[in-house]
Amino acid sequence: MLIFDPSRLESVMKQELIRRGVHPDAIGHVVGALVETSLRGVDSHGITLFPHYCRAVDAGRINKNPNMKILSQQPSVALLNADHAFGHHAGSEAIQMARQMADQTGIGVVSVRNSTHFGAAAYYGLQASRKGYMAFTFTNADSLVKAYGSDRAFFGTNPICFTVPMRNEDPLCLDMATSQVSWNKIKIYRMKKQPVPEDWGFGPDGRPTKDPDAVKSLNPIGLYKGYGLGIMVEILCSLLASGPFALQVIPMFTRINEKRSISHFFMVLDIGKFRLVESFLDDMENMVQRVRSLPTLQGVSSVMIPGDPEKQAFRERTVRGIPIDEKAYEDFLSLSQDFPGALKP
Amino acid sequence: MLIFDPSRLESVMKQELIRRGVHPDAIGHVVGALVETSLRGVDSHGITLFPHYCRAVDAGRINKNPNMKILSQQPSVALLNADHAFGHHAGSEAIQMARQMADQTGIGVVSVRNSTHFGAAAYYGLQASRKGYMAFTFTNADSLVKAYGSDRAFFGTNPICFTVPMRNEDPLCLDMATSQVSWNKIKIYRMKKQPVPEDWGFGPDGRPTKDPDAVKSLNPIGLYKGYGLGIMVEILCSLLASGPFALQVIPMFTRINEKRSISHFFMVLDIGKFRLVESFLDDMENMVQRVRSLPTLQGVSSVMIPGDPEKQAFRERTVRGIPIDEKAYEDFLSLSQDFPGALKP
Repeated sequence: MLIFDPSRLESVMKQELIRRGVHPDAIGHVVGALVETSLRGVDSHGITLFPHYCRAVDAGRINKNPNMKILSQQPSVALLNADHAFGHHAGSEAIQMARQMADQTGIGVVSVRNSTHFGAAAYYGLQASRKGYMAFTFTNADSLVKAYGSDRAFFGTNPICFTVPMRNEDPLCLDMATSQVSWNKIKIYRMKKQPVPEDWGFGPDGRPTKDPDAVKSLNPIGLYKGYGLGIMVEILCSLLASGPFALQVIPMFTRINEKRSISHFFMVLDIGKFRLVESFLDDMENMVQRVRSLPTLQGVSSVMIPGDPEKQAFRERTVRGIPIDEKAYEDFLSLSQDFPGALKP
Repeated sequence: MLIFDPSRLESVMKQELIRRGVHPDAIGHVVGALVETSLRGVDSHGITLFPHYCRAVDAGRINKNPNMKILSQQPSVALLNADHAFGHHAGSEAIQMARQMADQTGIGVVSVRNSTHFGAAAYYGLQASRKGYMAFTFTNADSLVKAYGSDRAFFGTNPICFTVPMRNEDPLCLDMATSQVSWNKIKIYRMKKQPVPEDWGFGPDGRPTKDPDAVKSLNPIGLYKGYGLGIMVEILCSLLASGPFALQVIPMFTRINEKRSISHFFMVLDIGKFRLVESFLDDMENMVQRVRSLPTLQGVSSVMIPGDPEKQAFRERTVRGIPIDEKAYEDFLSLSQDFPGALKP
């Protein structure tokens, strides 16, 4: 394991994107999102994706100078054609548009079509909730979750992200795939050659398997419930934006020269249009304090709210840096020898 | 098991509510919701609740002549004080308000405070989606789901309901508690004196138990994920409406003379503000057809979409009537001997 210094890493990542001619607005969001996500401990959606994104720019999947256009604009909803921009760029534009509508009418929704992978959904919700709004972020994703009753995958891991402002700390942040675990977790067990728990995934026959190499589809949370939530996210994203859905979406790590046309859905609520924001924040504080002081199960230090583990990781990693395994580091070096900021811990 | 003829049942239920002086608008929605829910096979939220609701009116928990008031009105969001009306009445008013806002701005949200139990969330979403809108319905509920990491329940089963119009059939309808199973299912196993599966609930020590009598809290779907979804629903409902939350909510079947002040959240999207409705319905048809023709696991007749089991039940029960067990029937007879419509099947 090596360690990246976040600010040195940021500057080399920026250089790499500038060298590729990526639009300056995109650069800020891509680098900002990846570093923040890694600092929050979400390694599957953080900086390790950077070399892949660079290859996707080189191959023409990601448009480095997109011409994003609003296709439909109503007082509270809009449809944005992202023109295959970096998802981080499209998503940040969209959540800002949603906020501006919420300021006027109480709520704003932006549906995004023709986007690309946007990393962690939390990055967009947190932008809005740090400014005092409640926000939802959804995206469709690779077809990896087994359809309930079928032997194979159909819908994606289609995450749900919900963020809520808090008074003296970063927002409450629920950011979850609708599968029990992410595909990344299966891959980690493959590398370690360890059996996976039986409720994580299914083999080619659609039956539970403990062999990580045999896993072909993921288990949705709560059987038909997680499957239903995945359909919900798919409809909110691709069907509302008229993008490709489920199996029509090209897998992230294959056919990298082809455009994926990912769809997102962003929603922002202005709490002050419902009630006094200060009273709402009082109630949040009261509720969270009660939750955090609930009696714990043996071996649990305290009951948490969504986002607490990431806040803990953020505190640690802003001091100690971002850990990166040697294989992932080699991927950075294959881009440029300017990534020598990795120090042994 | 006995059978109720739905239309005879409806008329006797109406008489009972008229006799109690319940407002005519409420009567239509209460009876309509309960019968529709039972016809859709959702027995836990259907007609069996009727005697309880009558007792709640008699005890003063449910206000039979509410003075509902809009406390805040913005172009796309509103806050409604339901004045302890029947939840079915308040919810139907709220979803209609949300629809009217969606017609103007693309989306409408109504937050409801001081309501009562509204039965099945699907009843409200279906009203909007049968008219072509996409809808979300949420409510808070009895504190029954174990907080992740704690030994005890804190948040409720807090359901998520999502409905989407379809062209030649009733809307797609996902209506799910955020726990693995409902409390009602535990009660059924108690009556049958059968052990429950280990992942349904927890004993007084917060550990999994198979003894239905020992179950004190329910297991959320996907561990911390379902717990997080429950918090999300609680915030959308009680915190946005400034109602009581979690443990502050009086349990449904106790202290029946006290008001519960349940909070709901309704959201309606006008699909036509994003894209041509006809193309959206084409895409829905295409997607659903693909899902339903996926290869199945052995023993499964076909892959379903959310709401399919309820459509099947509806087809059967509109012909054969609504089954009711003898104990539940006695509860009806305790209200009135006019409920003799039950015929042996």
